[in-house]
Amino acid sequence: MNFNEKYGAYLDEFNTVLNEFCNGLDCRPEVLKESLKYSLQLGGKRIRPVLALATADLLGLESRKIINFALALELIHTYSLIHDDLPEMDNDDYRRGKPSNHKVFGVGNAVLAGDGLLNTSYSILLKECRNGAEYVSASEYICHCAGVYGMIAGQSADLLHENDKSFNELTLNFIYENKTGKLIMAPIVTASILSGGKYYSELKAFGRDLGELFQITDDILDVEGDFSKLGKSVGKDKEEGKYTSVAVYGLDGAKIRADVLAERCRAVLEGIDGDRGFLVGLVNYVRNRKN
Amino acid sequence: MNFNEKYGAYLDEFNTVLNEFCNGLDCRPEVLKESLKYSLQLGGKRIRPVLALATADLLGLESRKIINFALALELIHTYSLIHDDLPEMDNDDYRRGKPSNHKVFGVGNAVLAGDGLLNTSYSILLKECRNGAEYVSASEYICHCAGVYGMIAGQSADLLHENDKSFNELTLNFIYENKTGKLIMAPIVTASILSGGKYYSELKAFGRDLGELFQITDDILDVEGDFSKLGKSVGKDKEEGKYTSVAVYGLDGAKIRADVLAERCRAVLEGIDGDRGFLVGLVNYVRNRKN
Repeated sequence: MNFNEKYGAYLDEFNTVLNEFCNGLDCRPEVLKESLKYSLQLGGKRIRPVLALATADLLGLESRKIINFALALELIHTYSLIHDDLPEMDNDDYRRGKPSNHKVFGVGNAVLAGDGLLNTSYSILLKECRNGAEYVSASEYICHCAGVYGMIAGQSADLLHENDKSFNELTLNFIYENKTGKLIMAPIVTASILSGGKYYSELKAFGRDLGELFQITDDILDVEGDFSKLGKSVGKDKEEGKYTSVAVYGLDGAKIRADVLAERCRAVLEGIDGDRGFLVGLVNYVRNRKN
Repeated sequence: MNFNEKYGAYLDEFNTVLNEFCNGLDCRPEVLKESLKYSLQLGGKRIRPVLALATADLLGLESRKIINFALALELIHTYSLIHDDLPEMDNDDYRRGKPSNHKVFGVGNAVLAGDGLLNTSYSILLKECRNGAEYVSASEYICHCAGVYGMIAGQSADLLHENDKSFNELTLNFIYENKTGKLIMAPIVTASILSGGKYYSELKAFGRDLGELFQITDDILDVEGDFSKLGKSVGKDKEEGKYTSVAVYGLDGAKIRADVLAERCRAVLEGIDGDRGFLVGLVNYVRNRKN
């Protein structure tokens, strides 16, 4: 299988589980259920679940052991997008080419949909905790990555530094490592934890660099991207005075940083035994992505 | 100790743990940490933690076994107030006599503070999961009560039925059992689960009735209460067309329903061996509360 076929296979495996999950939702009122399903089924690259499944493969971990963690991570990611798109946050009317959750269901329901997805991700993780200590550890790691020492810290700093022109790398690194990095690290490190800690330090380093790479290519796409491919507004970072890699390094500087990070990711993977071809392909895919 | 002294003792015990927790928070940026602490330390009755400690006492469960669940519950309750106070939700500018979180920190930060508290409550519960199967069960029960089959379902229905004049008891019961009831049941049932299921059905029934009583007295206070004692706006339910017990039963009808529920709570407690004096006092306190 080439890279695209393998990506498609992981995606199919994950989407089957996600669709089963969505079909099993029977909460009331109807508007709550519909708003959860709407955002979960908007599509997207599902990069976090794909990373979970691919890293599990690399480490010889059965996918059934990690699939619910992949699901929980996608729920957390989706909740963060719903809240991030709100008018007083990033104020995005489009997500994946369709109207944002709050444009369809209203702000009040969108707040609740996000809260509901976050809470449901923990109902999935708590159920996993019955399977043993490493499942508790993996759940705690994901919780750490999503929380006030992780993604939420990054989002808060991102908000704080809007229109702050005193660009410095330290602040940028804090925002990127937390806002995007930790939730890209999470599926990779989770696979290691569930495999008894295999290549823990290497995979953590890989995840950190891949997360920063992912955010920087996002910044580049905000300048050079195309709404029809991205499915979300472009040119917003500059307009809203966001603290981005393009603002700090310039567009060319951001591209150079992206190349360095991609190279570092590939170098870490070199040190890991096993079939790492797909993850190397994924690094290249993230570096060159158009959406 | 009389009722007030005992309430004060539980409150002191809980507040000590809460303050330790707040002092231990060292997330960045500063605004995130401050907004979490602001809402957690606004005070309040802390009825959920008090219920956890009091039910544990009744069942002979050491308070150290339930105290972190009490903390997680108070974090969940606090997050729900922050999000509920947002302009597009219940739009409350005051909470416990002080400006709401979003009035101090802005809507964006208030969304994140709520998300952060919810996430942190699960970092507390996941840590408890290492202590054994009943700790996982208790955590799962709390997660259920807080989630899309519990509090969030109730809030969604509450929002949906604003300005709906087709008052019926079935809808009201759904809203009350979920929006308020489940998170009042949670500390009581958690104590039972951690005690190996002692008086599980009785305490569940007690919690359900106490939750409805609590919400109905809230409705009555919205009509008859006093801002200086309540610390939040009054008369808002009618103004905003909320689906309340006063709207469904009328003010006198709501008071009669409250008396019936209080009587039922006392009757359930009669069937439980042990020192139930404090919980009987608590039923009376909730029925007659001024804030």
